[in-house]
Amino acid sequence: MELKNNMRSQVLIDALPYIQKYHDKIVVVKYGGNAMTNDELKDAVMNDIVLLSMVGIKVVLVHGGGPEINAMLKKVGKESKFIGGLRYTDEETIDIVKMVLCGKVNKELVSSLQTHGGKALGLCGCDGQMIVAQKLTGDVDLGYVGDIKKVTTKPILDALNNGYVPIISTVGIGEDGHSYNINADTAASRIAACLRAENLILMTDIVGLLEDKDDDSTLIPTVNVSEVPYLKKKGIISGGMIPKIDCCVEAVRRGVKKTVIIDGRIPHSILIELLTNEGIGTQFI
Amino acid sequence: MELKNNMRSQVLIDALPYIQKYHDKIVVVKYGGNAMTNDELKDAVMNDIVLLSMVGIKVVLVHGGGPEINAMLKKVGKESKFIGGLRYTDEETIDIVKMVLCGKVNKELVSSLQTHGGKALGLCGCDGQMIVAQKLTGDVDLGYVGDIKKVTTKPILDALNNGYVPIISTVGIGEDGHSYNINADTAASRIAACLRAENLILMTDIVGLLEDKDDDSTLIPTVNVSEVPYLKKKGIISGGMIPKIDCCVEAVRRGVKKTVIIDGRIPHSILIELLTNEGIGTQFI
Amino acid sequence: MELKNNMRSQVLIDALPYIQKYHDKIVVVKYGGNAMTNDELKDAVMNDIVLLSMVGIKVVLVHGGGPEINAMLKKVGKESKFIGGLRYTDEETIDIVKMVLCGKVNKELVSSLQTHGGKALGLCGCDGQMIVAQKLTGDVDLGYVGDIKKVTTKPILDALNNGYVPIISTVGIGEDGHSYNINADTAASRIAACLRAENLILMTDIVGLLEDKDDDSTLIPTVNVSEVPYLKKKGIISGGMIPKIDCCVEAVRRGVKKTVIIDGRIPHSILIELLTNEGIGTQFI
Amino acid sequence: MELKNNMRSQVLIDALPYIQKYHDKIVVVKYGGNAMTNDELKDAVMNDIVLLSMVGIKVVLVHGGGPEINAMLKKVGKESKFIGGLRYTDEETIDIVKMVLCGKVNKELVSSLQTHGGKALGLCGCDGQMIVAQKLTGDVDLGYVGDIKKVTTKPILDALNNGYVPIISTVGIGEDGHSYNINADTAASRIAACLRAENLILMTDIVGLLEDKDDDSTLIPTVNVSEVPYLKKKGIISGGMIPKIDCCVEAVRRGVKKTVIIDGRIPHSILIELLTNEGIGTQFI
Amino acid sequence: MELKNNMRSQVLIDALPYIQKYHDKIVVVKYGGNAMTNDELKDAVMNDIVLLSMVGIKVVLVHGGGPEINAMLKKVGKESKFIGGLRYTDEETIDIVKMVLCGKVNKELVSSLQTHGGKALGLCGCDGQMIVAQKLTGDVDLGYVGDIKKVTTKPILDALNNGYVPIISTVGIGEDGHSYNINADTAASRIAACLRAENLILMTDIVGLLEDKDDDSTLIPTVNVSEVPYLKKKGIISGGMIPKIDCCVEAVRRGVKKTVIIDGRIPHSILIELLTNEGIGTQFI
Amino acid sequence: MELKNNMRSQVLIDALPYIQKYHDKIVVVKYGGNAMTNDELKDAVMNDIVLLSMVGIKVVLVHGGGPEINAMLKKVGKESKFIGGLRYTDEETIDIVKMVLCGKVNKELVSSLQTHGGKALGLCGCDGQMIVAQKLTGDVDLGYVGDIKKVTTKPILDALNNGYVPIISTVGIGEDGHSYNINADTAASRIAACLRAENLILMTDIVGLLEDKDDDSTLIPTVNVSEVPYLKKKGIISGGMIPKIDCCVEAVRRGVKKTVIIDGRIPHSILIELLTNEGIGTQFI
Repeated sequence: MELKNNMRSQVLIDALPYIQKYHDKIVVVKYGGNAMTNDELKDAVMNDIVLLSMVGIKVVLVHGGGPEINAMLKKVGKESKFIGGLRYTDEETIDIVKMVLCGKVNKELVSSLQTHGGKALGLCGCDGQMIVAQKLTGDVDLGYVGDIKKVTTKPILDALNNGYVPIISTVGIGEDGHSYNINADTAASRIAACLRAENLILMTDIVGLLEDKDDDSTLIPTVNVSEVPYLKKKGIISGGMIPKIDCCVEAVRRGVKKTVIIDGRIPHSILIELLTNEGIGTQFI
Repeated sequence: MELKNNMRSQVLIDALPYIQKYHDKIVVVKYGGNAMTNDELKDAVMNDIVLLSMVGIKVVLVHGGGPEINAMLKKVGKESKFIGGLRYTDEETIDIVKMVLCGKVNKELVSSLQTHGGKALGLCGCDGQMIVAQKLTGDVDLGYVGDIKKVTTKPILDALNNGYVPIISTVGIGEDGHSYNINADTAASRIAACLRAENLILMTDIVGLLEDKDDDSTLIPTVNVSEVPYLKKKGIISGGMIPKIDCCVEAVRRGVKKTVIIDGRIPHSILIELLTNEGIGTQFI
Repeated sequence: MELKNNMRSQVLIDALPYIQKYHDKIVVVKYGGNAMTNDELKDAVMNDIVLLSMVGIKVVLVHGGGPEINAMLKKVGKESKFIGGLRYTDEETIDIVKMVLCGKVNKELVSSLQTHGGKALGLCGCDGQMIVAQKLTGDVDLGYVGDIKKVTTKPILDALNNGYVPIISTVGIGEDGHSYNINADTAASRIAACLRAENLILMTDIVGLLEDKDDDSTLIPTVNVSEVPYLKKKGIISGGMIPKIDCCVEAVRRGVKKTVIIDGRIPHSILIELLTNEGIGTQFI
Repeated sequence: MELKNNMRSQVLIDALPYIQKYHDKIVVVKYGGNAMTNDELKDAVMNDIVLLSMVGIKVVLVHGGGPEINAMLKKVGKESKFIGGLRYTDEETIDIVKMVLCGKVNKELVSSLQTHGGKALGLCGCDGQMIVAQKLTGDVDLGYVGDIKKVTTKPILDALNNGYVPIISTVGIGEDGHSYNINADTAASRIAACLRAENLILMTDIVGLLEDKDDDSTLIPTVNVSEVPYLKKKGIISGGMIPKIDCCVEAVRRGVKKTVIIDGRIPHSILIELLTNEGIGTQFI
Repeated sequence: MELKNNMRSQVLIDALPYIQKYHDKIVVVKYGGNAMTNDELKDAVMNDIVLLSMVGIKVVLVHGGGPEINAMLKKVGKESKFIGGLRYTDEETIDIVKMVLCGKVNKELVSSLQTHGGKALGLCGCDGQMIVAQKLTGDVDLGYVGDIKKVTTKPILDALNNGYVPIISTVGIGEDGHSYNINADTAASRIAACLRAENLILMTDIVGLLEDKDDDSTLIPTVNVSEVPYLKKKGIISGGMIPKIDCCVEAVRRGVKKTVIIDGRIPHSILIELLTNEGIGTQFI
Repeated sequence: MELKNNMRSQVLIDALPYIQKYHDKIVVVKYGGNAMTNDELKDAVMNDIVLLSMVGIKVVLVHGGGPEINAMLKKVGKESKFIGGLRYTDEETIDIVKMVLCGKVNKELVSSLQTHGGKALGLCGCDGQMIVAQKLTGDVDLGYVGDIKKVTTKPILDALNNGYVPIISTVGIGEDGHSYNINADTAASRIAACLRAENLILMTDIVGLLEDKDDDSTLIPTVNVSEVPYLKKKGIISGGMIPKIDCCVEAVRRGVKKTVIIDGRIPHSILIELLTNEGIGTQFI
């Protein structure tokens, strides 16, 4: 890219009010989708997070890892079984989930962030009993799929205060010591709320909330959480969007200043959202 | 057990000088062998560690996980291959090693310690770049088997200062960000040295160093590290004992006050070693 | 005592939940009676306190010294005069009381605790104006016998924070600077209340509160403070027990979690009370 | 300026290694020349400094104010008198110098930085006896022109630690309490050295050091301080450049990592120097 | 002065209760009038302030500088124009005011206090946006004469905590960054209130409030602020006294313990007011 | 005393350089002689110490109590026995010494200082094992008369840091836990040395060191410790002066800036010594 110095400096100066806005504030990023599988995008995300933490923003990274779990299950000859969009998680599955999330995905993210010049610490819900879970109740028995009962922010705040970006696998721990599979969006939402985060960013593989789902130009940039029931009724929020947007609403209701669904397929989408005046995707306030 | 109160109080009082000795000091425990597979022994170890941390001793737990790695390799249909006692670790194997150690064994230990009333934080060598590794050089190419280049104690000390027992998986990280399989005894030895530990305890499945390996009554209770070459020459230290005792020697040489090989098959062997005047196994000073 | 190692470790593990319960909490011990005159018992008490402070319990020791005061008064040819169980304290007597308590008993306890491996600091009510007293009013003029007007906890907390066991003589100071003789049970009760202690232990020469005062097997292990008036009416609490139990009630009413009357004639009674599941004597809650 | 988001984010990411390099480091900026008189340039400088302090760089601003002093002297009918490039400073002149620098220029800079969103604190050499001066000795008597005897960094570090950008007028204070006029370049150089600054930036109205002073394309980007005598001998460093470059050499000799002469006429020249890989002007190392 | 040692020590001892009273408390001194122009009185004031800060009293010095401003205006050929006792302040005048107050008077006071052995830091209303001002509204347009909108105590408290006597010029800063001339009495009153000062001392050139303004023996030593309206009605408070006494009333109403109008023409009047039992002048409570 | 205000303020100002000199410095005062028995003098000493601590001087008070010990020994019918000027101290005597010093004299001083507005904490050599002693060896067996083996300054510094004037009884503690009678001058000298005190003041009942012991006008104001052997040889230092002056020499040799023998019979002699330019008595430097 050929950019003159005056343009470079102008871009930096343009970012100043945004840096000031988020300085010393907590931003929770739910990392997932293409941004996690495409190498170039991964690289961009890591760079973004190192930059954000360097300019004084306290980033907390929460990740899932569905595709890697599926791959591992396949490798050990175990069929992935989903009921109502949620993974049926028997004893053997939760073991695989834990290994893949905490032992593979989490540690690779920690390594990667450090290779990019950051400092990171991997945590899962059992470390310092951060995410206390209980069996999800409902019509169907999903096995070791959990509901969050309590979030202990101490391990996260310790990591931030000690100068690390906390990278969190959303495996929860029951009061009996058993592990539970927790939906990463839900966990990110609860963690953001407990940390009184300034912003919760959910990285997805969609442009944002569209009035007409086949037309990207109908992106709704801002939604007030009170409008969500109406948008559901109208069918604008539907299908797989529902649980994700429910997480947004929940986070805002519990005190997060804003939640944004961004298009993780765009490189540096986190940076664009946080440090430019355009923003991308749909924000819920 | 039927014990009168006066006996109970006497036992507690007898422990006092040992508690005073280790108060506020760091003790590194390398956890492995039967003590890690037998449920009753595991329970006793967890209780011991909670008690030790409660009376003001700073315990750092380092663990391996060979049997669990073998089981998982078998499950994915991958043959375990050893060369000169060391696991040949190709790309696929290091992934399994990492998952099993950091994602399964480590997290189960964290959960278990907390179920017993302690506070724990799981760490692996990549967290905060704690264990920087490089490819082990030698006659044979062992793949991703690593040698420790540098230990950063900050993540361990942060955990201790924040009130947690750090539980460490010995997966190291190369400067290129790749993971390396590190021998747990070696890692425990180096970590103990860097932490200036008061004591390094290696849990094993043997009684200790025996003059006559077939006669438990010939246990050598104390060895000065300068005598080790002579004991090797005489064949008293031989076979699988050699690398383990080399770790003991190395730790003492680098500043650890003493290193003890204890019999992990005895319940509460850690407590007996640290808080009674008998000690068990063989200590190197 | 011949105890196998497994028994030793079991006793230590059995103590764990109690250590956890009192960890970082304040326990006030009123020291007196046989436990203070019998050398073997004294030794056991000192060991107990060193052990308790080593495992993280904040012990505050409050002592009287009646027998030593009597001995000294006799030595200077002064008759001990008691009115309604309280010592008539004229100018000369208060001088002797002060000398014996603050100059002899207190300093001997400080020395003794340190000889047993602890760290101690002797304090009396005038240090840092810790116990502000006023003349006890009532039907009879008892001279310089005082009532506690105010407790300043700063000198006690300073000592605890600086790593010492505070050992307190209960000589109070009037606003005019004159010294007053304060009942040690009363002082311990007020100090425990002001420190929001977890437990106040009164060492006595009785088994505890008995339904039938001639039958030790009728010990009442637990009394709710609301039952005390009824027990007084029934005559179960009577005589010299009344003021002591009033101190227990007062402490509980002012916020101490529990108060225990223990039999100081049993060696290590403090340890048994705090670190075993039996407890001894009668607790008031 | 029309810039796409991907370009914006790329510019930010490109700045990351430079932000990391200067993070938590002290950078001293000598502000002067056109950058101080042209409104647009002033605006850019203020924005640069706010941005730098926001991304964790500790900026210290040192300023002169020759043109404003001249204007004020003229206003009160006092002739500006220069001897060998230095202002002859009698009693009346030092009063005007002090008023203009500390009371006008300094306070306007403080206000301006704050209007741009920063936090600033104005200091002069007499505050906390920061710059202790003595009469400059030499062939000619220059009146109250001073030489720096000692720099006390405490007021500067206090300001930085309290979260302010310190803005410094270079009026020194004699041990007799009299004020002295100190050359701002010299003061910036000494202050940078005493603060162990990472970088000292001197803003000037020239492109940098040129091999052929009439040809901007002959800019020498880097000079090792050991080459300076040779460059003087060759006449490449000559005239008014000599004292300025002597300040650069002096700062590097006393421990500043590098000193840069930048062209203050280019907007955002500070940002370009610190946060891009081009740099501008001539650096002395 | 020939004073015997016993008299010297008695004076010191007599000061003790007053030192105790003001220890660690904030006292704001509005410095002005003769005490600021007469060299001997200046000397005494500086000594007083160094002594007070040495004995643990937190002194904040607020100053005006009318005569010096007039002199400078005259020097540049600008007429001083007063409307209703307030200086008409056009653009040119506010520049002179700022230069004289912040650049000359303030810095001379800082130097002087340090020459007397103290540590001082000069501040004006724009430093750290300490005094945010807005244009004074009223019947007449007075130009850049300001009203205090907000006082930020952080820069003052930072200076005190860092060990300096803060010396304050009362130039305020508008939200647009423009400077405003603020009456020093008013500023001292507001600053004292925001700092919850123990005492606000206004140095004047009068004996205090007199019942008969021509008879010094009719000094009213103490006035309750509730009596002020009555004293105004009776004409005892009149003319130039009115705004000054309004400042006293305002300070007391906003939480300052007492405000005193003292006769700055008496050497060491501050010391006499604070450290003797006589007090001087008139106090408002 | 009729003193005009200007005289009062002058006295305070005259004290300023001395306050500055001792500010935040430790001054050890050995209290004894008439100043301790005469009520008016006692009152003056207490006032002096409160004043000194209020103006930021860290006073440590060390006291003896010979007359009170004698009185008590007499009261219990025990003869005071001196050998070579030192009290023969058998088991019974050391008990009395301890009671009188730690229980009576010390606590009365603590009370008294507090009645005068100070904050005090009584300490003896056994508190925190402050003064570790061993049996004084020599030609004659003096019983429990001790020599200082080690001074632990922690309890003294803790008291100073917690805001108290430490008041110290010089009863030492042997490593066996037994108490020893320590000469108060010697103890004060060692404590001052270990605290790196600025000044050690020994209060006595003499004018100072006189050339002609019968002529007060021959007072030697200053002695360099190197001159002491010569003064001893000449007989100017003789008799009871020898051990006292040896303490002065020892303190200076071990790092105390100066030691002064002052005439405690003069009221406020401490204040005169520390806060006036006259000084009294003889100083050793």
